[in-house]
Amino acid sequence: MRTVTFLPSYRKIDVPRGTTVLDAAQRAGLSMNVVCGGQGKCGKCIVYIQSGRAEFDRQKFGRFFSDAELQKGACLACETIVQGDLHVLVPESTLIQEQKILVEGLDHEIEFRPSVRKYYVELQPPSLADPSPDLSRLLWGIQKSGGPVAEKMYAPLEVLREIPSILRHSDWKVTATIGLVPGGYRVIDLQENDTSKRAYGAAVDLGSTTVVVYLWDLVTGKVVGVASNYNKQISCGEDILARVNFARKNGLTKLQALAAESINQALTTASNSAGIDREDIYDVVVAGNTVMTHMLLEIDPAYMIAEPYVPVVRRALSIAAHRLGINCNPNGGVFAFPAVSDFIGGDIIADILACGMGERDEISLLVDIGTNFEVVLGNREWMFSCAGAAGPALEGGEVLFGMRANPGAIEKITIDPVTLDPEYSTINGIKPRGVCGSGLIDLLAELLVVCVIDRTGRINTEIEHPRIRKGTHFPEFVIAWAKETDIGKDIVITENDIKNLIMSKASVHAACVTLMKEAGVTHKDISTIYFAGAFGNYLDKKNATIIGLIPEIDLNDIKNIGNGAVTGANIALINRRARKTLDDIAYRIAYIELNAESSFMDEYTGSTFLPHTDFSLFPGVQKLLDSCRIRKE
Amino acid sequence: MRTVTFLPSYRKIDVPRGTTVLDAAQRAGLSMNVVCGGQGKCGKCIVYIQSGRAEFDRQKFGRFFSDAELQKGACLACETIVQGDLHVLVPESTLIQEQKILVEGLDHEIEFRPSVRKYYVELQPPSLADPSPDLSRLLWGIQKSGGPVAEKMYAPLEVLREIPSILRHSDWKVTATIGLVPGGYRVIDLQENDTSKRAYGAAVDLGSTTVVVYLWDLVTGKVVGVASNYNKQISCGEDILARVNFARKNGLTKLQALAAESINQALTTASNSAGIDREDIYDVVVAGNTVMTHMLLEIDPAYMIAEPYVPVVRRALSIAAHRLGINCNPNGGVFAFPAVSDFIGGDIIADILACGMGERDEISLLVDIGTNFEVVLGNREWMFSCAGAAGPALEGGEVLFGMRANPGAIEKITIDPVTLDPEYSTINGIKPRGVCGSGLIDLLAELLVVCVIDRTGRINTEIEHPRIRKGTHFPEFVIAWAKETDIGKDIVITENDIKNLIMSKASVHAACVTLMKEAGVTHKDISTIYFAGAFGNYLDKKNATIIGLIPEIDLNDIKNIGNGAVTGANIALINRRARKTLDDIAYRIAYIELNAESSFMDEYTGSTFLPHTDFSLFPGVQKLLDSCRIRKE
Repeated sequence: MRTVTFLPSYRKIDVPRGTTVLDAAQRAGLSMNVVCGGQGKCGKCIVYIQSGRAEFDRQKFGRFFSDAELQKGACLACETIVQGDLHVLVPESTLIQEQKILVEGLDHEIEFRPSVRKYYVELQPPSLADPSPDLSRLLWGIQKSGGPVAEKMYAPLEVLREIPSILRHSDWKVTATIGLVPGGYRVIDLQENDTSKRAYGAAVDLGSTTVVVYLWDLVTGKVVGVASNYNKQISCGEDILARVNFARKNGLTKLQALAAESINQALTTASNSAGIDREDIYDVVVAGNTVMTHMLLEIDPAYMIAEPYVPVVRRALSIAAHRLGINCNPNGGVFAFPAVSDFIGGDIIADILACGMGERDEISLLVDIGTNFEVVLGNREWMFSCAGAAGPALEGGEVLFGMRANPGAIEKITIDPVTLDPEYSTINGIKPRGVCGSGLIDLLAELLVVCVIDRTGRINTEIEHPRIRKGTHFPEFVIAWAKETDIGKDIVITENDIKNLIMSKASVHAACVTLMKEAGVTHKDISTIYFAGAFGNYLDKKNATIIGLIPEIDLNDIKNIGNGAVTGANIALINRRARKTLDDIAYRIAYIELNAESSFMDEYTGSTFLPHTDFSLFPGVQKLLDSCRIRKE
Repeated sequence: MRTVTFLPSYRKIDVPRGTTVLDAAQRAGLSMNVVCGGQGKCGKCIVYIQSGRAEFDRQKFGRFFSDAELQKGACLACETIVQGDLHVLVPESTLIQEQKILVEGLDHEIEFRPSVRKYYVELQPPSLADPSPDLSRLLWGIQKSGGPVAEKMYAPLEVLREIPSILRHSDWKVTATIGLVPGGYRVIDLQENDTSKRAYGAAVDLGSTTVVVYLWDLVTGKVVGVASNYNKQISCGEDILARVNFARKNGLTKLQALAAESINQALTTASNSAGIDREDIYDVVVAGNTVMTHMLLEIDPAYMIAEPYVPVVRRALSIAAHRLGINCNPNGGVFAFPAVSDFIGGDIIADILACGMGERDEISLLVDIGTNFEVVLGNREWMFSCAGAAGPALEGGEVLFGMRANPGAIEKITIDPVTLDPEYSTINGIKPRGVCGSGLIDLLAELLVVCVIDRTGRINTEIEHPRIRKGTHFPEFVIAWAKETDIGKDIVITENDIKNLIMSKASVHAACVTLMKEAGVTHKDISTIYFAGAFGNYLDKKNATIIGLIPEIDLNDIKNIGNGAVTGANIALINRRARKTLDDIAYRIAYIELNAESSFMDEYTGSTFLPHTDFSLFPGVQKLLDSCRIRKE
């Protein structure tokens, strides 16, 4: 064996005498430019022999190098044979550059290194002098073209059966699609001629309501299409519980098919709009909650909806796409995000990947609010998570004029402290039909600041103002008069609505504090709070703090990551290292069952005040409310 | 982390504080007896804490140990918690003993460590305090029962989907079947209750004429059934060439099905005779030549029968049994032996495994003779191989009264040097019908020794003897008079027959010498010659040397390994380490294309003498022939 040392990295590798320097470099993990596949034709794999004994044909190199360059030891790595221990300088221009790209929703670039790559190779046909088997010939060709080491690749039976005819029909010019799988690399596909520019992947957010697909060009690193549609499972049940019950009545196969169809529909829309053949999609990454993921895989979710709430599987899974009925290349793969528990699913792992909290030393708090909420607290060393029912109030449910964030929903409100007249904006700017989540939080905060409600949420009916009235069942505050609205009715918020909203926000806040206590940290230790999901998108951070939805920290340190599920899926699609970390992230997260924590109920009680019984947790809010009260008095 | 050192092996492992000693031992690779799965019930995992800090309940141990034992530090590993660095003595009785068994055809024992094992586990049902997913619970249970580390196991989708219902229907008492696969362990199957005593595997010799199956009990390490039948592919062509041509006319699918059917028929016979359910067969190991293996996998063999003779794949493959139509457990696997080239197939790799030549420092020569012959020369460091057409003569073809080794075939002959009367024995002892391969070799050697033929194979018609006559076309020697035979005709051997036999033996010998020259060794360097295949079984070693079929070495160093293909398959079935080495063996073997070696033709010419033109290669034969000649004169 001879030792080859590559400079400037000082990477060393022992190889048998007679190995090419290119081969040695590849074994040492250096990715060199080799357009011609190591045939000495393209002149890209330039290296400089600094010391040691190597064999090469100086005359051949004359075509590529000046005499001065040759004096410096310039060689083509593919045509230089190791004879003794060597020191070889590899100029940066010889190495394949790592591409970095910006992913939507992120403020930093991600290294573009997808799990699937295509390699176009022109092979020497077999001869009596080189009768090596078709598979070896192909795999060596791929390795020589910068692909993985031949021994680490394998071809499944379906590809193996096609190899001999494709190689010969194409006159030994083929494009192989190679995918990273646990323990090695899989030859996903083999095509005649050069199709290396046609490789696509899809990142999927499989939500219980909506399915979102981002279609990526895995060669250029660009998003070529985005599509979304409803999850067709809605026909089997509006919410997850209903669907699990549907599954229990022999409906799982149907739910699986509907999940696949929902993804297929979005895939079709995205690929049609981009003018892409779905057969060229090789990699589909799916982030969904635990129940959705189980359903997509046709694994029984029944045991997650009753005590003790047990999923069947939490680890990441790679499944052949055709087994799930996903319409992409038949040999393509589906990668499903891992989960932590029944409630902390792949969507939350994707949120964590998107906000990067699992990679930093600083402590972050991630909050994802829907009908249920999920909270994760931690850093690269440790993470705690919990989940609970927020109730529908924060999404506009169980609130008299509450509504989802659809056109006509009041999404922002301020109330004049003197006149008590609200100023609002609606989605799409049309006349108001109701109030959505972000509007309700504004309303709660504003009503508190202008002293229409007290810290328990009671409306001060002693204030004489046309907008403050007794209502049919409960005291209420008129947000918009009938004539301003699209519905011909006064839009009001009642004291009962406010109670429901407070209960919801109290659950979220108590969950945050329970995790903080578990971890032994206070709000002062939290560097960033991330809101994930649609709810966070339109939320007024200040008002969320005023009502005590989340612990009080500097407003600049509260961030919305939007649809973290799809952002995380995008990252896992285009960066193989990130994908590899997911199981680790999931295993690192401890799950706290709130029902089993007595402290949660204590925290909840304290949190049913605005912002909290303990003002010391909200010094900024206390100061603000004090100043308002003084001003009003 | 705490370091636990296990004595007497001094194996060390770093584990987090709080780990059980059992867990630490398993991570360190020690296989302990844990009948109860580590619940502190069976009292089998006895260890002695020699130093360091561990936590355990001495009272609990009172049931298992005397005070004196407790004084010595006796503990149950499963109930002892690592607190500090520890030194732990593991008595031999606590370790699971490696079982060694004798395999038919071998003179030494093989460690019994099959690739497939069943584990019966009794799991704790999930609870709010332990809501871990079904899969994790199962895998941890298997690990605790002495199985592989949980993270190294994976469950394919079909098993994953069955896990939740099987666990619950069986009241959390299940038997998991775990198979070693490249890169990890696969959960092949999950069954309710304790079926751990029912695990079987099959070793298959997939010959072009005959299929042989050995059925093994993978729990006890015993052969429970043996069966063989014709390869049904014979209906598509008698020889391999005809079948490949049949495959080229869209017949590959049929040939695949027939290969599977042939295996299935033998599997059925063997499992019925043993009273075994075929569903309990989880592992099928197949050794066959390269064309047979391609056909079983439905991979086009067409490119192996014409220049440059290229197989599609040579590496070992693991395929789900149901994909090949093999009737065993639907999730069971088929392991196909690797090959070196078109002619050096899995059957020869199995021969090499059976004779063990790839594990020794001494140089061995392996010879497998049929219509084609294969020769392998080498040791643990290097191996050369070649193959060629022996012609049909050595199997009784193209010889006037030649026949296969069927009843009535003369299989042994001696000729009285004075009377020239032959003495012979036939298969089954009935009247002779012809002469089979071993008889023909005897005949050739005896005729040479008694000087009826000269070293070129010419019959000395000048000898006046009723058995030596002119014949119709060629001079001939009468072996048996018509009245002694079953066919009512004189059984003779003609000079033409002798010429054909010499051409056949010359090919084999020239191949041996070509490899020896390639490797730079002489017959003196060869420690053992192995004959593999049916041909070797009845061969007289001395006569094979006299005619110069093989290089001359001490007769005691010539051995018959019989059906090495099935012996090798048996070894690979019951010993996972041996199976792992197969690809290495195959890759280590250089294949010499005889047609491309000019030296082969030179060697061939010299080998067309009896035993050879160069007597110095056969000093013993020379001495023998000299003494005979002198005696006769």
